[in-house]
Amino acid sequence: MLIKERHVLDEIFNPRSIAVVGASPDPNKAGYHFFKGLVDLKFDGAVYPINLNGSDVLGFKGYRNLRDVPAPIDYVTVAIPAYRVPKIIEDCVAKSAKIVHIFTSGFSETGEADRIELEAQIAEIARAGNVRVIGPNCMGIYHPKIGLSNFGVFRSKESGSVGFISQSGGNTGDFGRMGLVRGLRFSKLVSYGNASDLDSTDFMEYFAWDSETKIICAYIEGVKDGRRFAKVLKETAMAKPVVILKGGLTKAGTRAVSSHTGVLAGSDAIWTALFNQTGAIQVESLREMIDLALAFSYMSRPNGRRVGIVGIGGGASVAVADFCEKAGLIVPRFTEGTMARLEKITPVAGTSVKNPVDSPVGHRVAVPEYEETLRLVASDPQIDLLIVHLTIDWRIQTPEDRKNLHDLTEVLIKNKKSLGKPVAAVLRSCQSLHSWQVFLEEQNRCSEGGIPVYLTLEDAANAVSKLIRYYEFREKVT
Amino acid sequence: MLIKERHVLDEIFNPRSIAVVGASPDPNKAGYHFFKGLVDLKFDGAVYPINLNGSDVLGFKGYRNLRDVPAPIDYVTVAIPAYRVPKIIEDCVAKSAKIVHIFTSGFSETGEADRIELEAQIAEIARAGNVRVIGPNCMGIYHPKIGLSNFGVFRSKESGSVGFISQSGGNTGDFGRMGLVRGLRFSKLVSYGNASDLDSTDFMEYFAWDSETKIICAYIEGVKDGRRFAKVLKETAMAKPVVILKGGLTKAGTRAVSSHTGVLAGSDAIWTALFNQTGAIQVESLREMIDLALAFSYMSRPNGRRVGIVGIGGGASVAVADFCEKAGLIVPRFTEGTMARLEKITPVAGTSVKNPVDSPVGHRVAVPEYEETLRLVASDPQIDLLIVHLTIDWRIQTPEDRKNLHDLTEVLIKNKKSLGKPVAAVLRSCQSLHSWQVFLEEQNRCSEGGIPVYLTLEDAANAVSKLIRYYEFREKVT
Repeated sequence: MLIKERHVLDEIFNPRSIAVVGASPDPNKAGYHFFKGLVDLKFDGAVYPINLNGSDVLGFKGYRNLRDVPAPIDYVTVAIPAYRVPKIIEDCVAKSAKIVHIFTSGFSETGEADRIELEAQIAEIARAGNVRVIGPNCMGIYHPKIGLSNFGVFRSKESGSVGFISQSGGNTGDFGRMGLVRGLRFSKLVSYGNASDLDSTDFMEYFAWDSETKIICAYIEGVKDGRRFAKVLKETAMAKPVVILKGGLTKAGTRAVSSHTGVLAGSDAIWTALFNQTGAIQVESLREMIDLALAFSYMSRPNGRRVGIVGIGGGASVAVADFCEKAGLIVPRFTEGTMARLEKITPVAGTSVKNPVDSPVGHRVAVPEYEETLRLVASDPQIDLLIVHLTIDWRIQTPEDRKNLHDLTEVLIKNKKSLGKPVAAVLRSCQSLHSWQVFLEEQNRCSEGGIPVYLTLEDAANAVSKLIRYYEFREKVT
Repeated sequence: MLIKERHVLDEIFNPRSIAVVGASPDPNKAGYHFFKGLVDLKFDGAVYPINLNGSDVLGFKGYRNLRDVPAPIDYVTVAIPAYRVPKIIEDCVAKSAKIVHIFTSGFSETGEADRIELEAQIAEIARAGNVRVIGPNCMGIYHPKIGLSNFGVFRSKESGSVGFISQSGGNTGDFGRMGLVRGLRFSKLVSYGNASDLDSTDFMEYFAWDSETKIICAYIEGVKDGRRFAKVLKETAMAKPVVILKGGLTKAGTRAVSSHTGVLAGSDAIWTALFNQTGAIQVESLREMIDLALAFSYMSRPNGRRVGIVGIGGGASVAVADFCEKAGLIVPRFTEGTMARLEKITPVAGTSVKNPVDSPVGHRVAVPEYEETLRLVASDPQIDLLIVHLTIDWRIQTPEDRKNLHDLTEVLIKNKKSLGKPVAAVLRSCQSLHSWQVFLEEQNRCSEGGIPVYLTLEDAANAVSKLIRYYEFREKVT
């Protein structure tokens, strides 16, 4: 499956020209925003607004009809009422478009017979005319590197290694927006809605081939061909980490799925068995998916599951030890040599040197001792990786405290490579506006320095544990 | 146990005068901050700084010795090196102080024989002299209503109904700071460290009596007298919700506990059985504890566990339905009448009226229809309570969007009483600084309007489910 030649969908992700049907100068129309996204991101190719009046949009010459455009069109986004869509698909065929992305909803997801029929009609016209379809009822493709933004909401051309496949447009927005804030960078995002033609399986196969995409995340409500999905998933998960959130695993969730994208959700047991057999990593929420994508983006593979913990706060040290063991990690005592050396630089009172290390509390932490502590823990032969936690709130009352926090994360970033073992960081914040501002500043520095940052101790323990489990599974079956 | 007369510890929580031993004009000393906390909060009684030089602190006359203070002292905070503490306890006895709070660490938590002995010596002097002890190795009491702040970090005199008991000072700071941001208000917080005298059991018994405290939260690493703790916990949980985070349930966590407060952590199975038998609500993290305290602070008791869900976003609707059922809640289809009426005001495309209701997406939501939707769902006889979710990020791009978000939460707040059923809200944010600022603004409005606000769909489902389980348990056993 991991074909060397160009994957058939690669043209679709790299169009040279895009038309938006329903583009309008009116900011209350969805078509305006789809078009504006392309303009804002300075899409690398040609863009054409299409609307009933042939109005110009944002300074671009408008056309009444796709067929009037005096140039080839690779990619068409459709944002007009459902009953007018079949005619547009015929135009796409006439223009030999490669792909039509249908934002419009009101098709099979309604459960109404005439609207199911309308969707089938569209799919048939496209199939006969050799035009692929994304949707209907979806947001289409975001490919930051070339400025393809069908989401409007994403204003960044910064590219990364995480690909996201989603049946839900809202989840794509949520994952993308929060992922960007948390330090993820994307190769491509795709929201595919009702999957009248292209399905999660097609996109997963493409991401498996795509060298830009190193980590695959997917939100799935259901698939058309379970057997093919299982095969592609298995092959893909052997090549790259695949993190999946399955929507609709309960009775109420399944009912919500049928109202959302009109697919069959399938039973909980079948999906879980599938994930276990293929090595795909199942998560419970988009938040957890982001945590996993951060781990795979920034951490190399640990040699084992023995964690050394360095942190500040006795209660937090107890909690992180509990979370690590509950998640299936091991928190061994350090070797006697490490403990003896740690004791020399750690004040007796209120601290521990056994693992977790509870660094001196109080106002400021001595930076050289902190650096030495990290080095001692990382060089302990009992330890495969480090979890380091700091609390923001003790260190934002005065400029000196703030500088101390900056210095501590600087030590972490500076020593990351020389420590020789993977590191995950937790920056705890009480989430007041000031505390959160400092969190984002320090998190961004850590991300740029190649260290994933977690919001809570339990999030870090969970993500690190699932990261290790993925590599262990892949090793076991190969 | 729920004695009518004044509880023996009530004097300790309501001192008329406080001395801080180790108070200093030097902001690098802990004693400075303990004293400054009292000054900042304008403590209702007299305050006295005690230090070796008899220096004044923050304009208050200083004394070299407790015995030199020409007035009675109820409450003494000690923040000086460990080896000097026994002498101070003798002074406390001489002054007939009611309580001494020992911040100083370096006692039994170190595991060293001479320091365990030092702690025993202190406890013995105090016991013989009829002085109660909080600590050592802890932060003491925060009682906002009278301005008793031994934490320094808390600058609010605003009082509420949540009491918190904690072996860990760091956890007390984390719980208090984040709880304040999230909309909790406290009756009293107490950090008691090594529990050389007063233990979690004593404080729980007091909070059971204290009419200011309506919800009890506790972080516990271990207890001295398991039998007495079990008895008090059972009686207390029958009277008021008790939410407990047990630290040290794993091997590594237990080791961390012994380095932290020097107690025995006990086995996981015993604690879990105890919580199940008493109706205490066990949580996994401080974050979850805050979620529960919010539910009990703001929600009345639902008649059952059938949830009506109103939200925005198809993927989010699927997720919240899944989270609710996984948490043991029921998400029934609405009655035919409700669905028929909802259909009249809900656009067909991209929405559902079955439960969850997926309100119209797009830029703005029509406020009258939103209000009518809430009313229809709340009046459905199948429904016992509502979970309502909104996403911040779609509604902060323009002033009109921002106003729409404000209008939607306003509808929620305005109708809260007339809906006649408990409501929990989820305000999803991508957590960029701007999005977070808006979250805090809208959350604070909801809190003031009596509606608990959750960060994620799963947090809301979990908190609501545990709230209901608590009331069901209490009903079953009485």
